[in-house]
Amino acid sequence: MFEFKITSQNNRARTGTFSTPHGSLTTPVFAPVGTQATVKTLTPAHLKDINASLVLSNTYHLYLRPGDDIVSEMGGLHRFMRWPNPMLTDSGGFQVFSLAQTRQIDDDGVTFKSHIDGSTHRFTPERAVRIQENLGADIIMAFDECSDPNDAAYSSVAMERTHRWAERCLKAKRRADQALFGIVQGGVQADLRAESARFISSLDTPGIAIGGLSVGETKQEMHDMLDVVTPLLPENKPRYLMGVGTPEDLINGVARGIDIFDCVLPTRLARHHSAFSPEGRLNLMNATFAHDERPIDETCDCYTCKTFTRAYIRHLIAAKELLAGTLISIHNLRALIRLMEQMRVYIADGSFESRVPELLDQWANNAKRNQVTI
Amino acid sequence: MFEFKITSQNNRARTGTFSTPHGSLTTPVFAPVGTQATVKTLTPAHLKDINASLVLSNTYHLYLRPGDDIVSEMGGLHRFMRWPNPMLTDSGGFQVFSLAQTRQIDDDGVTFKSHIDGSTHRFTPERAVRIQENLGADIIMAFDECSDPNDAAYSSVAMERTHRWAERCLKAKRRADQALFGIVQGGVQADLRAESARFISSLDTPGIAIGGLSVGETKQEMHDMLDVVTPLLPENKPRYLMGVGTPEDLINGVARGIDIFDCVLPTRLARHHSAFSPEGRLNLMNATFAHDERPIDETCDCYTCKTFTRAYIRHLIAAKELLAGTLISIHNLRALIRLMEQMRVYIADGSFESRVPELLDQWANNAKRNQVTI
Repeated sequence: MFEFKITSQNNRARTGTFSTPHGSLTTPVFAPVGTQATVKTLTPAHLKDINASLVLSNTYHLYLRPGDDIVSEMGGLHRFMRWPNPMLTDSGGFQVFSLAQTRQIDDDGVTFKSHIDGSTHRFTPERAVRIQENLGADIIMAFDECSDPNDAAYSSVAMERTHRWAERCLKAKRRADQALFGIVQGGVQADLRAESARFISSLDTPGIAIGGLSVGETKQEMHDMLDVVTPLLPENKPRYLMGVGTPEDLINGVARGIDIFDCVLPTRLARHHSAFSPEGRLNLMNATFAHDERPIDETCDCYTCKTFTRAYIRHLIAAKELLAGTLISIHNLRALIRLMEQMRVYIADGSFESRVPELLDQWANNAKRNQVTI
Repeated sequence: MFEFKITSQNNRARTGTFSTPHGSLTTPVFAPVGTQATVKTLTPAHLKDINASLVLSNTYHLYLRPGDDIVSEMGGLHRFMRWPNPMLTDSGGFQVFSLAQTRQIDDDGVTFKSHIDGSTHRFTPERAVRIQENLGADIIMAFDECSDPNDAAYSSVAMERTHRWAERCLKAKRRADQALFGIVQGGVQADLRAESARFISSLDTPGIAIGGLSVGETKQEMHDMLDVVTPLLPENKPRYLMGVGTPEDLINGVARGIDIFDCVLPTRLARHHSAFSPEGRLNLMNATFAHDERPIDETCDCYTCKTFTRAYIRHLIAAKELLAGTLISIHNLRALIRLMEQMRVYIADGSFESRVPELLDQWANNAKRNQVTI
């Protein structure tokens, strides 16, 4: 279980397989996000259709609602949401720091108030592991503290705490059928990132996550940090870049040796009528699409593109019909999953490294992460 | 084209086939409502899965948004929304009277203000036919005036106007690939209903609709009017009871010789978390379902019931996830379509008449049309 086999390598980019109790993942892989045990507006049948393999869900949300005890009683997350393939849960740390109304951090854990009803809760490393054991995902995360990347002093403190918490998570972990990944932190300080990469690697977890990126730093800073971190990580373990990202980020991440990605971007964009396309990100609410008989992307093989015109989707948006969000979500997720499939082919045939400029160019107008305010 | 063949009869109930340019309908049939060229939250693939055959769409809504000219330019309604099977449009009359902000009726037509932006529009019988020709459904409706059932004097005036308008619609009609149905009106006055049934029958349209029921009258009044009307209609033409209804109404309608029904109830209930079940209508938001591992209906063959627990759907509702509406819509529509399939079998095997009490009893707790305020 949790064996990672690299099948092809192209400079730092690699393609391989990671075996889990719910099947094998072919990497590099992009995981759709199902925050509340559902990838918003899609059925598991839709996810299967777009060839999704790994699905992420959020510990913080599921702990608050419906409660990890109920998910456990219902047979765990896979059974609850009827996703039979691999799943990953985060530790709840990031949401406690970004969503909860108030929070008090100490070396033992975090006390916070729910964003739903203001009730008080406490997460510790041990509690985060126990909740994730109740949820039952194949890949689970150590409890970590994500710092403001621009605060060097805080990044150091948060990194140290993240390391102590990772040790405690490993000690608390009981289930053999879950892979606990340690998380590298350290803000945008190269020395901290190197220290964290070395420390987390020393814990010998079956995979290693890189947290605290795509949280407000520049693209250059993200790339610089990946250039520091990935060469220090063991080759034979999957690397997961948390919460990333745009198509451009996926290409740049794979080129730097990342194996697993997740991001809410494709589904969030979809709910704001924005679709990935070869012409760049389309705002399908735009009146110019009212008479456009083309699919969103003529080269795409998804149900939406095989079936509907831009004119129809534009009508659904204008008429405030929820089906618009479903159809664009199907397409946006499939677009990123296709991009990953394409990169795997290029890594396997040895052409990936030389195709990076072409890939970046192809996706350039889809990649501006500040283009659409969401 | 538009041939109606009765294959079995059981007292007044009958089962048969009605041929249209987009395939043959097996009657009695329940049509899901796709007001704005989409059955809310469902894809055409979902509709196919639940064995939907006829889909209704609303002329008033499509005329206002996206505009019947755009639908026509996009190849008509079937092609626009990608529903390859039979479709029906109403004339817009009912919505002009129920939704538009203000309206002025004269013998020539109706001037009204859009409920969307207050802009002024005018429908005449000729205009309603022209719009429906642009939309291109297989079955289209004469422009009619639906009166307050409790206002006898107005019912008489509205019926007379409906008759004149039906003649004008027939005269205006140009497309041979569309069946225009006349509409019987007359409120809850037996003499008016009889007069209207005779007059509309005399127009020799390929099918006849019964309008102005399920608009505030009692169940007994609806049954009484059907008992007056259907015996006066030609046997060899399909009869469509507009905007009806609850499971109980479908059973009572089929028993009185109705062949076609449509209603927003299943999808509207779904958006309010209410599901048809053998235990009666379930409010799935209820906390008692949080731990319920059963499907909505153990006897149901729909994707929702074959896949998900009540506990999961209850979680989706509590977490305000739109997938809840999709899943319950699939089930509620399938429940009524299954009921129609079952009645067709009973009519064919001669047992329908004797099974009506059992059917009504089985659906009793699902049928209270005022139980859930929506």
